[in-house]
Amino acid sequence: MTVRHLVSIDDLSLAEIRELFALADRFASDLRGHADLCRGMISASLFYEPSTRTRLSFESAMLRLGGGVLTAADMRSTSASKGESLADTVRVVSGGYSDVIVLRHPSEGAARLASMYSSVPVINAGDGSHEHPTQTLCDLYNLWVERGRIEGIEVVLAGDLRYSRTIHSFAYALARFGANVICVPTPGFELPDYVVQRLREEFGVEPQRADASRLGDIAARSDAVYLTPQKPHQLSLFTHARGLTVERVDAVYMTRPQTERHPDGGRNLGDYVRLGKHQLAAESLRDAVVMHPLPRRDEISAEIDDDPRSIYFKQASRGVPIRMAILSVLTGSVKLETTSRVPESRLHRTALGDNPCPNPTCISRTEARHVHPAYKLASRAPLRAHCGYCSHELQFTLVGCTTSRRVYGRDSLEIRKIRPDHLSFFADAAVAQTAGFEPGGAGDGRSADEQ
Amino acid sequence: MTVRHLVSIDDLSLAEIRELFALADRFASDLRGHADLCRGMISASLFYEPSTRTRLSFESAMLRLGGGVLTAADMRSTSASKGESLADTVRVVSGGYSDVIVLRHPSEGAARLASMYSSVPVINAGDGSHEHPTQTLCDLYNLWVERGRIEGIEVVLAGDLRYSRTIHSFAYALARFGANVICVPTPGFELPDYVVQRLREEFGVEPQRADASRLGDIAARSDAVYLTPQKPHQLSLFTHARGLTVERVDAVYMTRPQTERHPDGGRNLGDYVRLGKHQLAAESLRDAVVMHPLPRRDEISAEIDDDPRSIYFKQASRGVPIRMAILSVLTGSVKLETTSRVPESRLHRTALGDNPCPNPTCISRTEARHVHPAYKLASRAPLRAHCGYCSHELQFTLVGCTTSRRVYGRDSLEIRKIRPDHLSFFADAAVAQTAGFEPGGAGDGRSADEQ
Amino acid sequence: MTVRHLVSIDDLSLAEIRELFALADRFASDLRGHADLCRGMISASLFYEPSTRTRLSFESAMLRLGGGVLTAADMRSTSASKGESLADTVRVVSGGYSDVIVLRHPSEGAARLASMYSSVPVINAGDGSHEHPTQTLCDLYNLWVERGRIEGIEVVLAGDLRYSRTIHSFAYALARFGANVICVPTPGFELPDYVVQRLREEFGVEPQRADASRLGDIAARSDAVYLTPQKPHQLSLFTHARGLTVERVDAVYMTRPQTERHPDGGRNLGDYVRLGKHQLAAESLRDAVVMHPLPRRDEISAEIDDDPRSIYFKQASRGVPIRMAILSVLTGSVKLETTSRVPESRLHRTALGDNPCPNPTCISRTEARHVHPAYKLASRAPLRAHCGYCSHELQFTLVGCTTSRRVYGRDSLEIRKIRPDHLSFFADAAVAQTAGFEPGGAGDGRSADEQ
Repeated sequence: MTVRHLVSIDDLSLAEIRELFALADRFASDLRGHADLCRGMISASLFYEPSTRTRLSFESAMLRLGGGVLTAADMRSTSASKGESLADTVRVVSGGYSDVIVLRHPSEGAARLASMYSSVPVINAGDGSHEHPTQTLCDLYNLWVERGRIEGIEVVLAGDLRYSRTIHSFAYALARFGANVICVPTPGFELPDYVVQRLREEFGVEPQRADASRLGDIAARSDAVYLTPQKPHQLSLFTHARGLTVERVDAVYMTRPQTERHPDGGRNLGDYVRLGKHQLAAESLRDAVVMHPLPRRDEISAEIDDDPRSIYFKQASRGVPIRMAILSVLTGSVKLETTSRVPESRLHRTALGDNPCPNPTCISRTEARHVHPAYKLASRAPLRAHCGYCSHELQFTLVGCTTSRRVYGRDSLEIRKIRPDHLSFFADAAVAQTAGFEPGGAGDGRSADEQ
Repeated sequence: MTVRHLVSIDDLSLAEIRELFALADRFASDLRGHADLCRGMISASLFYEPSTRTRLSFESAMLRLGGGVLTAADMRSTSASKGESLADTVRVVSGGYSDVIVLRHPSEGAARLASMYSSVPVINAGDGSHEHPTQTLCDLYNLWVERGRIEGIEVVLAGDLRYSRTIHSFAYALARFGANVICVPTPGFELPDYVVQRLREEFGVEPQRADASRLGDIAARSDAVYLTPQKPHQLSLFTHARGLTVERVDAVYMTRPQTERHPDGGRNLGDYVRLGKHQLAAESLRDAVVMHPLPRRDEISAEIDDDPRSIYFKQASRGVPIRMAILSVLTGSVKLETTSRVPESRLHRTALGDNPCPNPTCISRTEARHVHPAYKLASRAPLRAHCGYCSHELQFTLVGCTTSRRVYGRDSLEIRKIRPDHLSFFADAAVAQTAGFEPGGAGDGRSADEQ
Repeated sequence: MTVRHLVSIDDLSLAEIRELFALADRFASDLRGHADLCRGMISASLFYEPSTRTRLSFESAMLRLGGGVLTAADMRSTSASKGESLADTVRVVSGGYSDVIVLRHPSEGAARLASMYSSVPVINAGDGSHEHPTQTLCDLYNLWVERGRIEGIEVVLAGDLRYSRTIHSFAYALARFGANVICVPTPGFELPDYVVQRLREEFGVEPQRADASRLGDIAARSDAVYLTPQKPHQLSLFTHARGLTVERVDAVYMTRPQTERHPDGGRNLGDYVRLGKHQLAAESLRDAVVMHPLPRRDEISAEIDDDPRSIYFKQASRGVPIRMAILSVLTGSVKLETTSRVPESRLHRTALGDNPCPNPTCISRTEARHVHPAYKLASRAPLRAHCGYCSHELQFTLVGCTTSRRVYGRDSLEIRKIRPDHLSFFADAAVAQTAGFEPGGAGDGRSADEQ
């Protein structure tokens, strides 16, 4: 029996996610009534950077399921200081110590790596700026509870859309569920291009200019963008010169400025959007729930804490039942009815060449000793690939075949004939030559060396 | 149903405290026999400063009651570093994560603030130099076990009586229970005036000079003071020129020098009192138990550790059953028979003006963003009030009425007519004027503006 | 009923150790099936230096037995910072807080001290460079599982044999069980003389030169030494000029360089032995299991991780069942059938003189306030003694009798007549004189002053 992990929200099918929501609902209605489900099991919190809230949420979930908890709240200054690799630590902790591992790590891709070496389920509780799938599930679950559905609802994302991991994951997930997203960034903190590109490529989302006048003050200083998985010809019915009009919003999702990731250390927040009574008075927000992943600073005024639309504390409290659902399913204590499993997209190893991942904080770089580069194929022509750990797009100019020892340009038709497991990536011809590869031809199809 | 907290020992009536003692006795007689009482419940230790002993004592109590424990032993360097307010943290942790919160915080009044935002019981495990009610309950419980009663017994307080929070709370509690206190401070570390004042005002305790000759060496360098709730005319029977004679002591309560709070950092401890075999040989101490809140340094010699009167380790171990009693009652697992609840003295908000609390480490100052100043009325003429969080006496010269927008001197008779909820405090006339208040008259009763 | 501790592996008889192995086997076969054994009990992890792996292993064991866990992962920076002695902390934590204490401390002898003051079992989870008996038990248990026995097997110890506590304890234990040891140190990191001496004195082990040619590359740069408890005349049958030939090895035990204890801080590791595919190909290692206490750095190549002989991760995972066995026996949850108890070798107090222990990190020096020097007698003529805490050999030139107040040279026959409890040790005559001792005679037996 293979062990199932939760490294990315993409590891779960939509049907499974809906089942998890229903399960979370059952737990939420009686938090203390399920203490037999994980009785005798142990979860281990391996936190390589502190995150008390996330840790307590998982540990509460496990305790409420009747399980035990091992806590390593500060792995970085303990085991890691003795020079142990993450791979080794995970092999040990998954060997008898615990029945599930909850991992928080500052390097992107750390949870993917851990899942490769663990004999028990690994749950990604945040890997650098990459993913935090249980936070995303919690956010979706809140929408599902508050709105009854996710498909077709209108969600405003406001604030720092550039540096917030939470926002990016949430945007992908909303697109996957078919929700419409209105981006209202603080100027200078717009959604990055690579996020928009992935939304377009993977979910068919086309950014449209939005008429946000009815959103009021919250969007006054933004160029609002409308992201919808609907087809352009459907949209054209509603679009006019000022863009798609935002009429009625289901949810406003605020984020704090991620100052720790700002190039200037957060010194220049400009006119950071702030949500107070005045902003909430906008006509289009009359029924909108207000969400925030917390902790907040000043972007949500305390004056709206008692507004029935403000659900951010409720949102956080729902982290417990949704994590109970995840823990009980991954440990096998509860079986989902859905049998259709999402095929995990295949990871291919790159056998030669330098590590083509450009991300300096990717686990494939920070734990280079034990980790072999791996990638996922994004497109064939031109060849584009993402790091199998941190999902950054790989950077290279030449592609080699490890059996024929030939290299080709990225656009060469020859590449299509090489099996993905035989692909290798090179920064330039000199690197390829050093690795013993020869130029493979003009890429016009005439020098194919492999079927 | 309202949630009940333990922020101050004053939150409990004497009858309730006696019931808690009886309950603790039941637990102490069979520490492992009550593991069903809190089964399925979770306590969260939120410690904003380290205190391993206190934390372990609470966690042991919860585990012995069959509950689970969430531990955040170092909140200051984790969540708090992300800028989250205590109020927000408490709202999250009390929302599904846990069924009771044990809070330790360096700011005075933090537990009071937390109790205002928590949907589960908050237990104050120490708020700066303010209160530590479970330590006080543990000390009282020890007296009750060792002496069979607290009323009328004779307790010596020795050492640093000036800077020890434990001592101050203990002195109030002893006075409330009708015990007699003999203060034997190290010179320079006498009980502060404001503590004596509160003892006098609230419990009718009159300080008397004490003849401590029979206390022997322990009091040789002190001007001993006798604090008794008995009426002066009763005392006169026993008093003579040298003061009330200390005949027979029931308990000696030693404290370590609180060097971390000394203005000189503890460099000058002078002739700090030290308890050893020689000191314990005093006639009046023949039956006295020796107590200490621990940790001790040199103020109690190891040579008396095996003396049957030395109960300080027993004292610490009784912290578990008394905390079991508190946890089981606050979580509703055990119901007290006493129905007479202490009316919590009312907190009034100050709507205008600067924060009149002079204490720089009060939570109303350190979390100014989310906390509104609040006060408790101490006396009407002259008007005196205490900070509703840290209990420091508020500092102001003028008092305003927020409906009439008039200000008066502290002694003005007009003030009596203003409803407490409409009171506002000002440092001086300029501040009042800036806030839009006008002088309200001579304070001779002729210009009343409110009935 | 006396409380039983596990301070040293010598606290257990061989028969008891074998029973613990059988018990561990039972636990290992069904890790989750024994959650009733310690139900209602609490173990306290008191860690004065971080060691996440060891701590998690113990805590997992206790949770799997159904008990609760109190965690103080960083005692040094909390309670200890308030100046509390280890003795006091242990008295408190063993008083109601917990039913067993797991102690990790940087000072040698700390666990011995703790056991003197604890009212519950103390388990030594590492005291400085001294002992770590559960690690040793885990290592022996692995050999027992993998080889079916320990007596007579051939174990290679490789790497840093000088600075590794684990290796020294393991060597003693192997000798005690009658195993043969082949030392293959990295040059400069040979087994210290005092270890060899103890092996000789206590277990009759005679070091022999070893012919390690069949060990291949792993021993290429070492002067291999064969340590066997077999009698010399038996060995002579197999010995020739090149030394005892190593034919077939049962286990290779690798250690990392203990750089933190190297005088040069680990800057010069020379040609540190490294185990990879090439080394494992040696004929004599065909059936050898490869062990390592972890964490490893580069001394074991990841390329052999999947070799079936590599059991180092399995070895770590067996730490849980062996610790379950220890916890269940010490807490009295499981009774061993063996009734023959190892007599704990008697500790004698030294009443006078300076502390003769030369080890600056011995607990008898670091906690001098509460700890009285104590020793174990090693030999009578000449008088040799070991520190009762850290096991270092005491350093002195004169021996005194505390009743006759006379001192003698170490070789004096008079000393034999002095009762061990009356012995006192002095650096030189001046120190003895200051303490009020007079020269006791020529040590020729004529001036005996005590029978």
